[in-house]
Amino acid sequence: MKQCWEQVAGGVTAPRGFRAAAVRCGIRQAEGDDLALLVCDTQGAAAATFTTNRVAAAPVRWSRRTIRRGKVRAAVVNAGNANACTGARGLRDVEATAARAAEVLGLRPENFLVASTGIIGRYLPVEKLLEGLPRAASLLDPSIEAGDRFARAIMTTDTVVKQVALRCDLGRGSVTLGGATKGAGMIAPGMATTLSFLTTDAAIERPLLARLLRRAVAQTYNRISIDNHMSTNDTVLCLASGLADAPAVRDGSKAAERFEAALTELCRILAVKIVADGEGAKRLVRIEVVGAPTEAAAVAVGRAIADSPLCKCALHSGDPNWGRFVSAAGYACRRLDEARTKLYIGEVLAYAAGAPADAPISRLAEAMAGREVLLRLDLGLGKAAATVWTCDLSKEYVAINADYHT
Amino acid sequence: MKQCWEQVAGGVTAPRGFRAAAVRCGIRQAEGDDLALLVCDTQGAAAATFTTNRVAAAPVRWSRRTIRRGKVRAAVVNAGNANACTGARGLRDVEATAARAAEVLGLRPENFLVASTGIIGRYLPVEKLLEGLPRAASLLDPSIEAGDRFARAIMTTDTVVKQVALRCDLGRGSVTLGGATKGAGMIAPGMATTLSFLTTDAAIERPLLARLLRRAVAQTYNRISIDNHMSTNDTVLCLASGLADAPAVRDGSKAAERFEAALTELCRILAVKIVADGEGAKRLVRIEVVGAPTEAAAVAVGRAIADSPLCKCALHSGDPNWGRFVSAAGYACRRLDEARTKLYIGEVLAYAAGAPADAPISRLAEAMAGREVLLRLDLGLGKAAATVWTCDLSKEYVAINADYHT
Repeated sequence: MKQCWEQVAGGVTAPRGFRAAAVRCGIRQAEGDDLALLVCDTQGAAAATFTTNRVAAAPVRWSRRTIRRGKVRAAVVNAGNANACTGARGLRDVEATAARAAEVLGLRPENFLVASTGIIGRYLPVEKLLEGLPRAASLLDPSIEAGDRFARAIMTTDTVVKQVALRCDLGRGSVTLGGATKGAGMIAPGMATTLSFLTTDAAIERPLLARLLRRAVAQTYNRISIDNHMSTNDTVLCLASGLADAPAVRDGSKAAERFEAALTELCRILAVKIVADGEGAKRLVRIEVVGAPTEAAAVAVGRAIADSPLCKCALHSGDPNWGRFVSAAGYACRRLDEARTKLYIGEVLAYAAGAPADAPISRLAEAMAGREVLLRLDLGLGKAAATVWTCDLSKEYVAINADYHT
Repeated sequence: MKQCWEQVAGGVTAPRGFRAAAVRCGIRQAEGDDLALLVCDTQGAAAATFTTNRVAAAPVRWSRRTIRRGKVRAAVVNAGNANACTGARGLRDVEATAARAAEVLGLRPENFLVASTGIIGRYLPVEKLLEGLPRAASLLDPSIEAGDRFARAIMTTDTVVKQVALRCDLGRGSVTLGGATKGAGMIAPGMATTLSFLTTDAAIERPLLARLLRRAVAQTYNRISIDNHMSTNDTVLCLASGLADAPAVRDGSKAAERFEAALTELCRILAVKIVADGEGAKRLVRIEVVGAPTEAAAVAVGRAIADSPLCKCALHSGDPNWGRFVSAAGYACRRLDEARTKLYIGEVLAYAAGAPADAPISRLAEAMAGREVLLRLDLGLGKAAATVWTCDLSKEYVAINADYHT
């Protein structure tokens, strides 16, 4: 399909019908806003995906229920405390948050998705959050600046704000999609946590939105890894206001195809931003696995490389120690055949037919020297392919996650 | 079973009927011996386990065949080059090695297991090795010192020699077991590689020895992790000379039970030594998972903690950020129930009934401050249990594996 989208200014407030706000309520020790609100002006459609960790944070447990009830139109997000491993008290704190948000905004508690990021296993200082809510509500605004502030407030150890907006041409009329996300980071220190908030002014039914979001997340958010530790708080929410000047997106239509392509691209851009800003990382690594017997096998090989500290250390220093990548593929794919496997670093063939290719080490080193590195593995076994994104492992990662004490 | 073994001096040459030697042949850049020989004076029994990585080094491919033929009675080992990802030339180099060793020692090529450790994807400087073999053969000796020298020659980034010997009381008569192993380390830099050479003077049939070794390895070597990157060269060889003053160990006998207990203990001691000397590590971590629905589930939970860089960073700094351990259990065990899960750090209860226990953070920190740390997870789901050993992740690990360039 021809590219049907273009990037436009802004983030979650770029589509019509969304307002955002952020304030500091003092939950996190670091400076800056730590409470954010996102509100959709209409009762459109909402869909979300959550962590599959059996240890799910209280806000995830609350939000799963509200998403099932189908009435979500706003999100309350805090940084500085993940409200995970907090038992019954954690759930009571989420309920109080939703109740107060409902009161302040004239909505119902089940209209609110709640998301938290930060340290695990500490009770949420909920009073601070409740105090902050009316202030946040009074600042709700549809401007790009308000969206910026939202995106900034959900950051933890992220070093850059992560947001994007796309205009998508549906054929007849166009829609806008926006999003903000936070990186897999630590706070004071907490857990690797990914939160993502997506918005669109498309008119779309909830089941279709849910299906398209699930597919987009599978191809993007679920194909990144910084440290292979699944969060207790992962949440990707997508809200649709239906306020665009375009006909509704119907299942099976050309417009649905285009919308899905744009939604996937939105998720891809945000997910890759997370990896590019991985804790202590200096390189973004794109691992393309082709010639795989199945897509699952391709993903497994990509993940094995992405999750190997040995591979990540080589990627950090730009060391063309390609045996590490090949050996990771060897334990990830039971059907791997060395004789058919090829490894390219950038455009340079490093390994083929079970032995080193002829590339001089200087060319391989050059291919690993940039801010972005491409590894391409051709398994020679079939037609399936997948891309996985990761980053390098540095002393700074250890410093961020070890030297900082609870 | 009452403990039937006691530790005695020495390593691979402690049992009767074994001679060892090591020389420097110049394969590795670092100083010291890099070619080692271990010979059994009789044609007793031999058994081995190998890496399950589909990318298996040439020596592993050779040795699998020789083990199947049932005539192995010696090992040629080199450090400095893993001879992995080296295709047909790699195999020819192994064949040449075995042929020369056979010539020098008056044996046949299929009597030799060959093992290599070091950098992957570089051709072995086989001439150096062939030159070193006669010198090594001339030094073969049954002394403890010769065993020491063997154990030292197989080291890569290991900082301490790893060997042990046990005397095992079989009821009627006793046997000795010895072993030397190398750590999961890098060389110049290579891959994490574990080689282990076990010896015994017990008289035992090959099928029984093979079964007991497989079980012992499953409980010990296969339950350690330093960086979750499976080597292309892993080899555990056990040679039995049959020269002890004790009746043969028969399947199903009390003696077999005792021998298995001692063999497992031998492997456990050596495997734990590997983890204790993990690259850059300062803590040995024992993860006991109990109350699991199955042994596999217990191992999976232990491994998830052992393989999480986040958990390992907390273990490095002694930070009692226990949410990291619980959350890893949450993604490793699909049946995990937060309400039933308990986490102890040392003797201190950190988490129970889905929420923080009352332990003051200072007590938890104290339990994590030592050279050895115990994590104990009770899943409350069943009667299965498993122990996994790991170490912490430090900046030194990154330095060893990143700063050193190929």
